[in-house]
Order: sequence, then structure tokens, then C-alpha cells
Amino acid sequence: MKFVKNDQTAVFALGGLGEIGKNTYGVQFQDEIVLIDAGIKFPEDELLGIDYVIPDYTYLVKNEEKIKGLFITHGHEDHIGGIPYLLKQVNIPVYGGQLAIGLLRKKLEEHGLLRQTKLHTIEEDDIVKFRKTSVSFFRTTHSIPDSYGIVVKTPQGNIVHTGDFKFDFTPVGEPANLTKMAEIGKEGVLCLLSDSTNSEIPDFTMSERKVGESIDDIFRKVEGRIIFATFASNIHRLQQVIEAAVANGRKVAVFGRSMESAIEIGQTLGYIKCPKNTFVEANEINRLPAGKVTILCTGSQGEPMAALSRIANGTHRQISINPGDTVVFSSSPIPGNTISVSRTINQLYRAGADVIHGAVTNIHTSGHGGQEEQKLMLRLIKPKFFMPIHGEYRMQKMHVKLATDCGIPEENCFIMDNGEVLALTSEEATVAGKIPSGNVYIDGSGIGDIGNIVLRDRRILSEEGLVIVVVSINMKEFKVSAGPDLISRGFVYMRESGDLINDAQELIAGHLKKVMERKTTQWSEIKNEITDTLAPFLYEKTKRRPMILPIIMEV
Amino acid sequence: MKFVKNDQTAVFALGGLGEIGKNTYGVQFQDEIVLIDAGIKFPEDELLGIDYVIPDYTYLVKNEEKIKGLFITHGHEDHIGGIPYLLKQVNIPVYGGQLAIGLLRKKLEEHGLLRQTKLHTIEEDDIVKFRKTSVSFFRTTHSIPDSYGIVVKTPQGNIVHTGDFKFDFTPVGEPANLTKMAEIGKEGVLCLLSDSTNSEIPDFTMSERKVGESIDDIFRKVEGRIIFATFASNIHRLQQVIEAAVANGRKVAVFGRSMESAIEIGQTLGYIKCPKNTFVEANEINRLPAGKVTILCTGSQGEPMAALSRIANGTHRQISINPGDTVVFSSSPIPGNTISVSRTINQLYRAGADVIHGAVTNIHTSGHGGQEEQKLMLRLIKPKFFMPIHGEYRMQKMHVKLATDCGIPEENCFIMDNGEVLALTSEEATVAGKIPSGNVYIDGSGIGDIGNIVLRDRRILSEEGLVIVVVSINMKEFKVSAGPDLISRGFVYMRESGDLINDAQELIAGHLKKVMERKTTQWSEIKNEITDTLAPFLYEKTKRRPMILPIIMEV
Repeated sequence: MKFVKNDQTAVFALGGLGEIGKNTYGVQFQDEIVLIDAGIKFPEDELLGIDYVIPDYTYLVKNEEKIKGLFITHGHEDHIGGIPYLLKQVNIPVYGGQLAIGLLRKKLEEHGLLRQTKLHTIEEDDIVKFRKTSVSFFRTTHSIPDSYGIVVKTPQGNIVHTGDFKFDFTPVGEPANLTKMAEIGKEGVLCLLSDSTNSEIPDFTMSERKVGESIDDIFRKVEGRIIFATFASNIHRLQQVIEAAVANGRKVAVFGRSMESAIEIGQTLGYIKCPKNTFVEANEINRLPAGKVTILCTGSQGEPMAALSRIANGTHRQISINPGDTVVFSSSPIPGNTISVSRTINQLYRAGADVIHGAVTNIHTSGHGGQEEQKLMLRLIKPKFFMPIHGEYRMQKMHVKLATDCGIPEENCFIMDNGEVLALTSEEATVAGKIPSGNVYIDGSGIGDIGNIVLRDRRILSEEGLVIVVVSINMKEFKVSAGPDLISRGFVYMRESGDLINDAQELIAGHLKKVMERKTTQWSEIKNEITDTLAPFLYEKTKRRPMILPIIMEV
Repeated sequence: MKFVKNDQTAVFALGGLGEIGKNTYGVQFQDEIVLIDAGIKFPEDELLGIDYVIPDYTYLVKNEEKIKGLFITHGHEDHIGGIPYLLKQVNIPVYGGQLAIGLLRKKLEEHGLLRQTKLHTIEEDDIVKFRKTSVSFFRTTHSIPDSYGIVVKTPQGNIVHTGDFKFDFTPVGEPANLTKMAEIGKEGVLCLLSDSTNSEIPDFTMSERKVGESIDDIFRKVEGRIIFATFASNIHRLQQVIEAAVANGRKVAVFGRSMESAIEIGQTLGYIKCPKNTFVEANEINRLPAGKVTILCTGSQGEPMAALSRIANGTHRQISINPGDTVVFSSSPIPGNTISVSRTINQLYRAGADVIHGAVTNIHTSGHGGQEEQKLMLRLIKPKFFMPIHGEYRMQKMHVKLATDCGIPEENCFIMDNGEVLALTSEEATVAGKIPSGNVYIDGSGIGDIGNIVLRDRRILSEEGLVIVVVSINMKEFKVSAGPDLISRGFVYMRESGDLINDAQELIAGHLKKVMERKTTQWSEIKNEITDTLAPFLYEKTKRRPMILPIIMEV
């Protein structure tokens, strides 16, 4: 980083600023880089066919030997999902809490990267020391166990990264370590990077314990089967469901791959505890009375292939809805999933189930703190400089407003873009320059091989379809020797559009005759002539603009 | 309708049951059909490239001579948008309030249908009499002026259709006619069809007058330009904005086609009143001080081509955001638009504007009544039978719950599907049978020419792209005379995938040689061989399954 002075501490993000997802942050002092998280982002609708989005890792690849380690705040996909892709390009050790490392281990195994990677499980009081910098941790509360904030000590001062957090004073697992946060603040913090996700929400986020009370209520009242859908990674939620089931004499059957593996890992690490024989196999539930059954499953976001969606639409191999079933959505739909969740709820009602969902009851709470919690973090950490992270621009903007309300001067707050580098001394902070930071698309096994041209083509194909014009030309005699033939996909239903196709063929044939008379030998010219003839004709007849693909065979 | 007895009154819907949109209802007694509304639905995301969805009008076309008239409850697209498509197939008179007829007139003009259509503007006390049935009206409140409920008198009893409604006791326009509803109830109602849209919302919907107070507040406090985005058809809202502008010494400039035409029609019909010189032309606003400017525009749903989106992303010809501008979203995002609205808000913040939106202030209210209003309607109309309409299944289900709470026996409540026919006598109601009622897709100028095959192709093309294999074969000598050549679109970026393409070509060439040795003359067999060879190869290399299109030219 030429634009950062040799004695300055640099802070940057490759993802996670102005967006939700692909969180990837870095703190650099001279030849030591501490990375924090490496997440993926789920693509928005217009990224047709794209599976995930990761950041451009160019800067990290170029500076591989400087990277001391990757530190994970917690085990959610938007914080660890990018790690396999990063580790394919750089070989660096990874540090994280035991659940995050457990989840990552599974992921690296699938990618064939487990053997070559050094994984370190950290505990709250660990300090990882490098030559010039060191890293320590403080426990936070979030919607997954084992969540940590991270302190990077640098010669210019301490950089604090909150990870995702809320303050739950009556959590199901360990409480956040307020004492340690206060000590960190007392010691002095140069810059705080803090989670902005819920900065537009004025309320203090409801405690997970209250959700537990609602779950208890449901289990006490419902007489039929209970089908409970939630996020697999919310292991404390799973534990609460299992406790309610046990207390009410119900068995639990687990459906959905990620739910099965969450239960497994949760039991292994001791987060999920229950009497023996609590869990039953899928084929046993039909032998139990309805009042003895809990089905714990994935699909609370209406994902079409998840267990609940298949149960709802009748395509699940083992379970179908019976009248008297109660389905609980212990979740709130993320933007973009509203319609699919709603569709699943309708299907469940139609099939005769009763449905309990977030809009109606206190059956879910957010993993992120609202405004009061963000202010509590600011008051505890008392940073000199402040950088809102995780969240769209509007949320970062609001978070800065909260920071200034808590006494941080506005000129000390930095709303940054991915790739921008903040250069810090103990006295000053300036946005010093920019490193590469674009979006890299993952589609199938391809990483970054899909660009804007391919996406533009997919967009046109998806909305208007395709018309192929095939013609054989004898280039010696300047004669059309076969065709033109028209083939279409996604345009009109060909069998019912015979006239349209015939007219188009005649039109092109007539035009090609004239083109041949000009004795042109430029294929591109002939192709353009075909497109320019056909496009306006099809638009006039159908008001559609399909992609037109002329194919000329020379004979 | 063979399945309805000759003395029964039939009630049915072709759209609007179990869904939001394409509302189209019918009441039939013998040879008299009274139609209520003919709306369109905006397609969900998976209907790639589809512009609108309308119902299957087959039953209406077959029974054209029985249709006495189409009665419009109000002028929203989901109630009038289908009329041009219906009138292309049947020639029937249309009745509606003056605003609905005004909006429809414009629409029919665009479709070249205005001359041939008989339009009747009705007033609340009108009664339209046919031989056996008659139609009368009662004023309701909704988010567009001139909204009516409809009473169809039949020999078996009165059928009441609420249209869309809420009860706003302090509306901006005329209040709902509670007295007339009470009288209708007193006279006796056989069946009520009532709006279910907000049946999951417990609250009594906030009065439009309160929105006016919030608007006033904003206009009093803001010093820079105010850019106000809302639904063009909410003419009372527009009037409130204009009043606030006038009261605070601001001029109003109007942007966006539908907003311009709403202002025009609103002034013509007397809903929008203001002093002369309130409106200014686009080019004048840059000459006015910021504190004197109101910009009233479309785009409150983040629609990419609407005025506000273009202002936000800097592509609007006349307006760009200045620091100090305040943008008001007087709307709430409908599901499916959440992300695009959020994107627009982020762009506006980035450009330096302040943004006021529904999540933060009382700057919008729904046009539909919540549970208490739905119960008020049930108590006033006191129907014998009840059919929840407008809304997804979950909402209809909840509406039935409200009806039973209001004393209607559950067996008298009918949650129906589009196409199902309810046969009524003064004593009894039964679901008697079904008429055709599918979805018809409109894409460009095509009505119903896009079916599932075309949509399936668009889906594949959009997610995985396309690979075309072109090969010339000499069928006499069983020899490949040119090719195979590979052309792709939306699959991989070809220039960077030379190896993949070369390998694939070689693979196919080798395989074709073997096929030729078999001396096959079946093109379909050759095509299948190409697909079956290429598909697994591409999947192995890329984990993608593009559409493969073999094209064989015979020479």
C-alpha cells in the first residue's frame, strides 16, 4: 500500500460495506495483515444463475506472505462462506471459536482443503501474538453460539471489530462480556468497526429467552403435530425447541441436510443437550400419536428445495401435512424471500395446517442489536474514530448519526466503500487510497468466469428469448444453398406461430438474395443484414426483442 | 352453466381469489350476467419477461350475449387493467364512477377501443335495471377517489361486493356511506363478497388525514427542495401535497408520465384544486430557490424506469440530487419491491439527500381496512353467506375467522378458488362446479401465446445459458463436411474459455465420426448423440447445465 505511510495502521474491507454479506475486513501494520472474516453474499435476482458472490481477493493474493491469519467472528455464511475460495488462492492459518471452526471444518472437507489448512480454535481469553500486532477477543451475543468481537492491537492503537452482535442480557448461552468490553474501552480504542445491520430499528432487540417462552406456550397448547422451521445455525433456538418438546412429552424428528448437521455438531460441542431417545428417525413418526411428534426442519425462508417447502407442496418423500398439524415459522423473511415464504404459508393453510408465523407472535427475534444496543457498544468501547460496517449505506449513515449522538465528532466517523483504505495514526485518520475490491461471481464450479456480458445475455434470453437464423451460403457462386431456417427458444410457441416464422423466413430469404447480388464476402456484414432485417419485423409483429443469432455455414 | 339450477343465482370469480390481482367477478341469474371489475396482475419473478397476467375469459366469450354490463368498483389497475383485453373479445357496456371511467377512457384510447365501447358514468344513487337483475352502489373509502361497493339484486336475494375498502371517518374526499350500507344490511343480503387484503392486520387503518398532518410537518420543517414520491392514483394524497406546498409558499413540478396524467385528470374532475401558478414547468425549477420547490414524482416503488429512480441514479434528464434535498417516500414497498426501494434509498443518501420513508414516519397509510374494519363491514351488511375475496389464501382464511367471530356460521362461509361457482337460493349455498379460469400471459403484443414450454426455456437460458453446436453433414457420403462449431450465449465468457470450447469440439467431432460410421440417417438421433455427449462433459467441467441446441445442415 504505497498510499499508507510506513508508521500508519491501515483498515480496509473487501466486502461488507454498503451491503449485507461477503464480510471481509483487514487490519494492516507494515508487513502484518490481520484478516477478519471471509464471507459470501447471496446474489440479488438480476444476477441470473449466479450461486454466490465473493470479493475480489487480488490484494490478498499479492500480499499473501504478509497475512498473519484469518480471524472468524462467528460461523454464519456471510462471514465464513468465502473461506474455501480464499484458501484456494492463499495458504493462511484460520482462527475462530469452536462452533465456527466446526462448521468451517465441514466446509473445507467438501472442498478438499481440510488437510492443507491450519485451523486454530480460540477461547475468549486467548491472545494471538505476532511480531508487531496481536489479536484478542471478547464474547458477544448473536443468533449463533460462539460469537466474538475482535481486538487488533497495533503500534498506533487498538482496532476493535464487533462482528455481528446484539446485547441479550438473558441469552440462552453465555452472555456478552460487558466487563471485558468496558476494559477494552478503558484501555483506549483508536477505531471501532461496528455492526450497522439494525441501525434503523429503534427498539432494543427482544431476548432469545422471550422466544423460548412463546415456544413453550405453543408446545403447551397445541394438540396435533408441531412442525417447527427455523435457521439451522440458530442452535440456541434449536435447544429451546428440544427442551419444549421434552417438557411436553414429544419426540423430535429432524429434516433437512443443514438441520441434521446443525443438530449433530450442536450435540458434539455440547450446545444441544437432551435425554436419550429424544430424537426419532423419520420412519418412526408415523407410528407415534400426533401429540407426541415434533418435526424440526429447514425451509423457514420458503427456499423451494428445503424440507418445509416440499412438505407444503406435497413432494416430500416422508411427510405430508395432516389437518391438525401446526407449522411454526420461527424466523422473519429476509427481503427477497417474502413472496416465497408467503407462498409456503398459503400451501400449508390449503393443506389443512394451522400456521404460526412471526407477523402474528413473538416467535422470532433478530440476531442484531437495534439503536440502543449500538449506542451501548459505542459507550463501552469509546473509540476515537468510528467506521460503521455490515449494512447498506442507509444503515451506515444512520449508525454515524447514533455515533455523533454518543459524542463522537462527525469528522471522526468514516462511511467507507469496499476497497477504500483508512490510514490511522494515534492522532489522525484519513481515507488514503483504494485497493481492488469488485464482485466475483460463482456459478457452478466457475469462480469469476461470469462477467457482465454473460449476465447481459442471460437477461435478454430470460425476458425475450432467442431466434436463430441458419443459412448455408455458397461463397463461390454467391448463392444461398440452404435455409434460411428459423429456430427459437423462449420466444414464442413455434407450433402455434407458423405464419410468423414463415413470413420471417421469406423476408430474410428475399433480403439475402439482394445481399448476394452485391457479392459481399464479409460474413459479419451478412450477419448484420439478417439481424437488421429480422429485428424490426419481429418487434412489429410481437412487440418483443429476442436475441437474434445468425449462423452462416459456408459450403 | 349446466351445474347451476335454473332458479339459482350463481356467483363466481375468474381472478382475485387466493391471489392479489386480476380481480374479475361475476353474478349470474339465468341469462343475465353482471360482471364486476376486470383487472390485471403483475407477474411474479419466475414469469420471465411476462408483462401482465389476465384471467382466461373463455366463459365470458361463450356467454357474451348474456353479459348485461361490466361494473367497475374503482380505477386501480388490478380492477380495470384487464378491460382492454376483455373488450377485444366481447363487446359489452362498462359502468363506473367518474374517475374510473376517466382512467379507463385513456386506456381504451391507447388500445383503439374507445369508439366502439359504451361507457356509463354512474353516481351513488343510480340504479341500473335489467330484466331480472339490477345493480346499485354505495360509496366506500379507498386509496383512490370514487370507490364503490356494488349490490346486485337477484330473484334469490342481494349479492354485495365491497370492492377494495377501508373505513376512514376523516377522509380527504367523501366519507363512506355507512347509512346506505346499514340500509342494505337491513333490507337483507344473501351473500357478501368482501376485501380480505389486510385481514392479517389487527389495527384500524390510519386515516388519510393523519398522513396529511405528517406531510404538513415535513413541509414546515424542511428548508431545501422536497422531492415527493407516491402512487399517482392516490389523488387525495396528491391534493394534500399540493395544499402543503401552497401553504408553505412552494411551487410544484410534476415528473413521470402517470403522475402527469393523474394531475391532469384530477384537475379536470375537480379532485385537485389549487391557486393558479401553483404548477411550474420542469425547466423553471432550477431558477427557483430550493425552499420554493416541490417535485412530485413517480417511483415510490423503486421501479427502475420511473422518475425517482432516474433522479437517484443520476440518469434523469432534468433533475439531479443536490445536497440539502429531502426525498419523501409516501408509500410502503409491496413485497417483491423491497430490494429495489432500498437500492433507491441508498442511492439518494449517497447523492447527499435526506430521505423520509414509511418505516420511520406516518407518511403513508394503506387503502385497505384491517380486521376491525372488516368486522364493521360484516356487522353492517349482515349477510347470510360470506365469501372472502381479494387476497391470498391465508388472508381469506383469516377473514372467515373474523366472519365467524361476527356470528356467521362457518358452514355459511366459502373460501373459493378462481373458476369455482357458488350456486345460491334464498336458503342454500353450494359450490356447484367449475368454469375455465387459468392464467393468460401478456408479453409485448402477444396475449396467451407464451406457455409453460417457452417459460421453461427462458428459465434455463436465464440461469445456465445456451450452447449451440453447428455441424454440416454430407448425408450421401456420411461425412462431416464442416464443423462442429460451438457458439454460446450466457454460458461462459468465450474468449477466456478457449480450451473448454476446443476440448468440447474435439469430443463431439470424435463422437460424430463414430456416428457417421453407423451410417445413420436419423437427424434426431444425431442431435441426441451430440447433446448426450456434450452435456455431461460441460457439467463435469463447469457444474453448469446450459441448454444445448444442435443444428445440423445437410449438404
